[in-house]
Amino acid sequence: MDSSSPVKVAGDLLSLPVRNLLRAFPKKPGAAPGTLVYTGPERSEPVAVHLIEYDEEDLEERALRTDASFQEFAANDRLTWINVDGLDDLDLTRAIGSAFQLHPLVQEDLVHTGQRPKVEEYDDYFFVVLRMLTLDTATSSVKNEQIGIVFGKGYVLSFQERAGDVWQGVRDRIRGKSGRIRTRGADYLAYALIDAIVDNYFNILEFFAEQVELLEEEVLESPTQDTMHRIHKLRQEMFVVRRAVWPLRELANALVRTESPLVDEGTGVFLRDVYDHTVQVVDAAETLREVVSGLMDLYLSSVSNRMNEIMKVLTIMASIFIPLTFLAGIYGMNFERMPELGIPWAYPALLGIMGVMALGLLIFFKRRDWL
Amino acid sequence: MDSSSPVKVAGDLLSLPVRNLLRAFPKKPGAAPGTLVYTGPERSEPVAVHLIEYDEEDLEERALRTDASFQEFAANDRLTWINVDGLDDLDLTRAIGSAFQLHPLVQEDLVHTGQRPKVEEYDDYFFVVLRMLTLDTATSSVKNEQIGIVFGKGYVLSFQERAGDVWQGVRDRIRGKSGRIRTRGADYLAYALIDAIVDNYFNILEFFAEQVELLEEEVLESPTQDTMHRIHKLRQEMFVVRRAVWPLRELANALVRTESPLVDEGTGVFLRDVYDHTVQVVDAAETLREVVSGLMDLYLSSVSNRMNEIMKVLTIMASIFIPLTFLAGIYGMNFERMPELGIPWAYPALLGIMGVMALGLLIFFKRRDWL
Amino acid sequence: MDSSSPVKVAGDLLSLPVRNLLRAFPKKPGAAPGTLVYTGPERSEPVAVHLIEYDEEDLEERALRTDASFQEFAANDRLTWINVDGLDDLDLTRAIGSAFQLHPLVQEDLVHTGQRPKVEEYDDYFFVVLRMLTLDTATSSVKNEQIGIVFGKGYVLSFQERAGDVWQGVRDRIRGKSGRIRTRGADYLAYALIDAIVDNYFNILEFFAEQVELLEEEVLESPTQDTMHRIHKLRQEMFVVRRAVWPLRELANALVRTESPLVDEGTGVFLRDVYDHTVQVVDAAETLREVVSGLMDLYLSSVSNRMNEIMKVLTIMASIFIPLTFLAGIYGMNFERMPELGIPWAYPALLGIMGVMALGLLIFFKRRDWL
Amino acid sequence: MDSSSPVKVAGDLLSLPVRNLLRAFPKKPGAAPGTLVYTGPERSEPVAVHLIEYDEEDLEERALRTDASFQEFAANDRLTWINVDGLDDLDLTRAIGSAFQLHPLVQEDLVHTGQRPKVEEYDDYFFVVLRMLTLDTATSSVKNEQIGIVFGKGYVLSFQERAGDVWQGVRDRIRGKSGRIRTRGADYLAYALIDAIVDNYFNILEFFAEQVELLEEEVLESPTQDTMHRIHKLRQEMFVVRRAVWPLRELANALVRTESPLVDEGTGVFLRDVYDHTVQVVDAAETLREVVSGLMDLYLSSVSNRMNEIMKVLTIMASIFIPLTFLAGIYGMNFERMPELGIPWAYPALLGIMGVMALGLLIFFKRRDWL
Amino acid sequence: MDSSSPVKVAGDLLSLPVRNLLRAFPKKPGAAPGTLVYTGPERSEPVAVHLIEYDEEDLEERALRTDASFQEFAANDRLTWINVDGLDDLDLTRAIGSAFQLHPLVQEDLVHTGQRPKVEEYDDYFFVVLRMLTLDTATSSVKNEQIGIVFGKGYVLSFQERAGDVWQGVRDRIRGKSGRIRTRGADYLAYALIDAIVDNYFNILEFFAEQVELLEEEVLESPTQDTMHRIHKLRQEMFVVRRAVWPLRELANALVRTESPLVDEGTGVFLRDVYDHTVQVVDAAETLREVVSGLMDLYLSSVSNRMNEIMKVLTIMASIFIPLTFLAGIYGMNFERMPELGIPWAYPALLGIMGVMALGLLIFFKRRDWL
Repeated sequence: MDSSSPVKVAGDLLSLPVRNLLRAFPKKPGAAPGTLVYTGPERSEPVAVHLIEYDEEDLEERALRTDASFQEFAANDRLTWINVDGLDDLDLTRAIGSAFQLHPLVQEDLVHTGQRPKVEEYDDYFFVVLRMLTLDTATSSVKNEQIGIVFGKGYVLSFQERAGDVWQGVRDRIRGKSGRIRTRGADYLAYALIDAIVDNYFNILEFFAEQVELLEEEVLESPTQDTMHRIHKLRQEMFVVRRAVWPLRELANALVRTESPLVDEGTGVFLRDVYDHTVQVVDAAETLREVVSGLMDLYLSSVSNRMNEIMKVLTIMASIFIPLTFLAGIYGMNFERMPELGIPWAYPALLGIMGVMALGLLIFFKRRDWL
Repeated sequence: MDSSSPVKVAGDLLSLPVRNLLRAFPKKPGAAPGTLVYTGPERSEPVAVHLIEYDEEDLEERALRTDASFQEFAANDRLTWINVDGLDDLDLTRAIGSAFQLHPLVQEDLVHTGQRPKVEEYDDYFFVVLRMLTLDTATSSVKNEQIGIVFGKGYVLSFQERAGDVWQGVRDRIRGKSGRIRTRGADYLAYALIDAIVDNYFNILEFFAEQVELLEEEVLESPTQDTMHRIHKLRQEMFVVRRAVWPLRELANALVRTESPLVDEGTGVFLRDVYDHTVQVVDAAETLREVVSGLMDLYLSSVSNRMNEIMKVLTIMASIFIPLTFLAGIYGMNFERMPELGIPWAYPALLGIMGVMALGLLIFFKRRDWL
Repeated sequence: MDSSSPVKVAGDLLSLPVRNLLRAFPKKPGAAPGTLVYTGPERSEPVAVHLIEYDEEDLEERALRTDASFQEFAANDRLTWINVDGLDDLDLTRAIGSAFQLHPLVQEDLVHTGQRPKVEEYDDYFFVVLRMLTLDTATSSVKNEQIGIVFGKGYVLSFQERAGDVWQGVRDRIRGKSGRIRTRGADYLAYALIDAIVDNYFNILEFFAEQVELLEEEVLESPTQDTMHRIHKLRQEMFVVRRAVWPLRELANALVRTESPLVDEGTGVFLRDVYDHTVQVVDAAETLREVVSGLMDLYLSSVSNRMNEIMKVLTIMASIFIPLTFLAGIYGMNFERMPELGIPWAYPALLGIMGVMALGLLIFFKRRDWL
Repeated sequence: MDSSSPVKVAGDLLSLPVRNLLRAFPKKPGAAPGTLVYTGPERSEPVAVHLIEYDEEDLEERALRTDASFQEFAANDRLTWINVDGLDDLDLTRAIGSAFQLHPLVQEDLVHTGQRPKVEEYDDYFFVVLRMLTLDTATSSVKNEQIGIVFGKGYVLSFQERAGDVWQGVRDRIRGKSGRIRTRGADYLAYALIDAIVDNYFNILEFFAEQVELLEEEVLESPTQDTMHRIHKLRQEMFVVRRAVWPLRELANALVRTESPLVDEGTGVFLRDVYDHTVQVVDAAETLREVVSGLMDLYLSSVSNRMNEIMKVLTIMASIFIPLTFLAGIYGMNFERMPELGIPWAYPALLGIMGVMALGLLIFFKRRDWL
Repeated sequence: MDSSSPVKVAGDLLSLPVRNLLRAFPKKPGAAPGTLVYTGPERSEPVAVHLIEYDEEDLEERALRTDASFQEFAANDRLTWINVDGLDDLDLTRAIGSAFQLHPLVQEDLVHTGQRPKVEEYDDYFFVVLRMLTLDTATSSVKNEQIGIVFGKGYVLSFQERAGDVWQGVRDRIRGKSGRIRTRGADYLAYALIDAIVDNYFNILEFFAEQVELLEEEVLESPTQDTMHRIHKLRQEMFVVRRAVWPLRELANALVRTESPLVDEGTGVFLRDVYDHTVQVVDAAETLREVVSGLMDLYLSSVSNRMNEIMKVLTIMASIFIPLTFLAGIYGMNFERMPELGIPWAYPALLGIMGVMALGLLIFFKRRDWL
């Protein structure tokens, strides 16, 4: 993201309902495990399946039909990457699941959006769930999408909630032929996909950092109740980010330490790099969270200070004029015998006394630093 | 729960006494361990015992008398599930306990409501205590009930405080014959029961999320002292949920890692799934708790802001009219010699000066963004 | 404790000095370890020693003189329970200590009140320190007393600061002959004593829960500065409870996992039960602590709200009458030429205008929800 | 410390600069390790070296010159305790260091005040750093001094920043001949020194507890801004104490678990006792810290309450008299036609109405509990 | 840093944008791992390479060209230290990387500023990332720079973002010939470099401690909204420090515990010393952070207190003069029949009554400690 073109906070982003913060609602209690239920939002676009098959020499890339036979891809020699955009076609998930012999619970989790990031090691494959946060630069909003990645010997399956992802760079490297990626196995491709998702978190964090800076400026210059609401909403946004990134450390660590033959030793050093990045992301997210908390303190102190300002004005005005008004009231009384009233210089003298009183009070307030 | 029909907060729910938060009062100090004492609320309904016996082929389902002989069920070939609704019949607990050779402490814990979720491994059986939170959609209140589950070779015993549970789906799957559940052992049935309870927590959390959203709207639009009381009570409710879900992780983890022959290896992957869900529940409950804390901050800032608004009105009114009143007071004095009083245009001139002063103050306040 | 008869907070309880919170002052720095120094409060009652000796058949129970020879009790066949009420007789402690060959540091700790709960395993005996919290229903105050328990092969020694304890139920079970306790060893008796103390914590917690409920009601209905002081003091009380219960988990856990032949395997399951209870106590104490913290937030928000109420009244009164007074002041001026003064309907007209102004302001305040 | 003679807070104690809180500034970056640099405050007193040599039979005690040869003490048969008061004589440290073959880093740390408590195990000796907090009863201030203790086979070296310590009791026991200390080795002597320092923390904590009580009383009775400053400073003092005691647990634990032949098995039980005490000290310090935090809450609520009181007085005065003044203003107007002015009973009637209005407002305020 | 010449807070330091707090933005998502991208700020100075080669006898020191061949340095006998100032010459990094056979990910991390401190152990070398905080005494600002150190058999490579470091002392020791450093290997040199960086943190912390003291004084004497902003900014600065020092413990610990033959056993004791220092730095940073939090509390209480002061003045002025003005208003009314008006001594009597009322109120306020 180019930091020179500040992105504005979209209204949508800042009115996220609390329910979305949780994003964790499984099936109907008591239903059989392995029952496939799509729990994401309704979608109008069709489900798209995209295939990339390659080895060091060749590369084949095409769209597949959702009712294709996936059996052949499970058994071929080349490295097969099948990417599915859209999770609401349960038959497709079942077909792919049975072709690659995925456990029913894995199939269930694939379409069951709202999962917490995790990695599960099975005998023949790894199952990884991640949350992909993407920044829609058009509407300046952050999208929170579940990504399921399954990788085994010779294949990688990826399931996204929607079309559009952060993997363009990976695809380009595969197409480019010269890169390391064409000579390595499925574990390396899976690593590359995970790495791209993790690296993109930094963009999201930078986006939030910019929001925080805008809000900080607002708090310092012209805080309103609306500022507080925006801080509140931003804090809730940070909860979403934290829930996405917090389990990542554990996930990356589990991949680093696995002894499965599916993960090549040479890939280990790259996974360690991903682990480092996740630690950095978590660390930065924590820092950002604390900065937002600090903003709230700053806002409250700012409100208190303005209250002080208001009270000072009131106190100065009232303290100066109320005693003077009293004096004027004295000489507005209608007693028959008020000797001062007859003295010719009494009126200017009183005005003079009033001026001295006002001046005295002004000096008093000045000394207290109220002016 | 259908999210389109918002559930209202029942008065009952929000006036839970603090004592109920604890729900942890064991027997009279010094009493012998294994002394059965029912510590739940008084009940008027009779205790009901329900039996389901099945194997892959057959299924038998019937109500049992509370004074039945349970000896036969402990020794038959088919998988036996005895469910007890109501814990106040101590003789029944003793009879079942001695038929299935349960340790006196297990019997004590079964009727001793207010237990913390836990799992205990004995040689011949596992003893699991859970808290079942159910949403009574009629009264929109959450019920907090202790569930004791004992499972050993060929039998599952479940003890509920009240009739009504979240296991209808499990029963349907058993009756349906075709499901995996008919071919598996007692460990799988126990897993299914625990799974249903854990999955239902998501509904409870969604219920609370809706409450939080309603309260958030109230804080933003028209916060009153009553709003604060409701936030306070909701926070206490969250304590109850947290105490129910927090120990679950440990519990699920203990079941996953057990090496007892009573838990089939094939069930392990399902228990790991339950573990994942408990982690998600705990995680979501924590997030919700933080959102509620954020609501309180928002409320307090909102109160401060309204104070500021009130003070501004007072200050503006007082600052404009007090000096003017003073001026009027000056010319209401009865000094004999006040030359201005005789000047014909003095009155309109003074009114003009007053207008200018008022305007000046208005501009001053406008500049300070008080208007 | 019968929850239907609410216990009032004793003045004493709520004016506990901070020094008592610590209760942890050992001997003069540099003194030799094993130097017996009684650090508790001064006592006027004499020290009492009580003996219960029993096996499955017989039971002997009598008071002992403080200068008795304890050598014989250390070597007899029956299970010997010597209970000491009062720790200020250092010779007695030395006599018992040397008869049962207790380490000098154990003897020192026995009379050294203010210990943190702990368990120490020696070759021939276990040394357990607990804090017994008892509720004095007469004065409605909580007493915090150190209990030292030593158990070895064939004997249990218990040392209390004062007469009066929660062990009546245990004594009754011993006297009752039929119970399990008569057939088991010293480890089981020690378990029974610890269990009684732990179980009694629930009563203490219930007592505090009631205090919290009373305070909650007070905060909601008529909070005063005194309410805040009581919340403050209650929070300090909770520190005492927490310091008593927090180390219990570790203590119970150490007893559960010991491999000493002094603890029978059959006693293990009972100790695990104690462990469960300590976890529950700690958990409940934590919840209570958070509820008290919540009370403080509620109190502060309530104070802010009352401030708002006060400010509203002031603002409404001042905003309505200050402008009207100004108007009256205008027509109280003594200018010679004020044409309005001569118009016959000017006075009622002005009164009308004043009424309209007041009404307008009332509507303005009504719209802002200040009325 | 005699608790009946309350110690007053010294001005010095409460104006500790923040820099002193840290007390952790090592040598110039890039300097060679093992470079001896004294980092403590400047001292005017000379460095004093004191020797005690003893075995079960004999005892020799004398002052040494700082340029003495220490070689002989490293090799004699009797137990040698060399105590150094004052760390600014670097040659002395080097001389002792080379006589007892101490690692250059140990020598560096000995004179490098501001160390965190730690224990380091070398082949031939242990190196222990502690912080000795002493209460200067004359000036009622707490002194924070670094103590380095080295003990090996047959010798103990102790290095203090200043003369004056808490080891008088230990010296008396050595001189007394009858005690256990004369028959044990260097490890036991080191234990005794550490034990005395740890035990003295309880006195310091009691001193702070008294300060807290004084402040608590002040907050409840007559809180001023100065009270807040004192609470603030006390909280900073607690940071110092916490930094001194927090690492102690780890330190004591390391000594308990060491397998070095330098630590006799019989000393283990005494070290475990020290460990218990450190846990208690840490525990008590934490409690005290929370009490101080509670004081701050209490102070803030007290300030809010006083604000409420002030606002009530203002509101009552203004609300009663502003409307009355308006009424008086009405009848002070100079309209020619104001029929009420001519009615003879109008004046007393108006006074009556005013009285009723004032009474009504008083009742209104009474009902709101403002009076 | 000489503490007698207080350093002022530079404006720059206190206006650090939030984005800089994170400093953790890796490459474009999806890019191949090992892609070298310089992520630091733009630089105008040229990249400088500096070589020191030495053994016990000889020393050679010279600048290298950035297009030099580094192959020779990787294979010579003497210890080679190559220091690079400036990371924006990617070809240079590649050239050095391939000469010393560094893993592509190491090369990437070297130029990728914004890394979290870490240590990575490879077969032939260690890769250490640190953050060097330096105090620019000219502008009184803190610079946060990434330092990459690679050390293997016979060579140490160091990469800095900018010229200027804290290693002058190390260079002097190397040049001095007599020191230990000339006789030890690459591990000791790397230790010396890390040690210098860690030791310099203490200066940074002292710098912040001084800032805190200045702010504390400001809060106590004349707090303004600007004070709050400075506290806020200082707190954010502390986040930067914490992120630099927090991972250090782990880093130092990993170096202490490594079993690689690259780290000599004799170096272990020095690394343990570094570990001790990192623990102290982390500890001091935490304390400082808490002190800053305390400052914020102090500030808020100070604002509340000033509000109280303002309100008191207002209340006293209004409470005294509003009733008096009312009295004056009474006798300014124009009723025809007001008997008091004719009494000759009525006017002085009224003045007397007014004086008594004012005095009474003053006494009332005095009693409430408002004066």
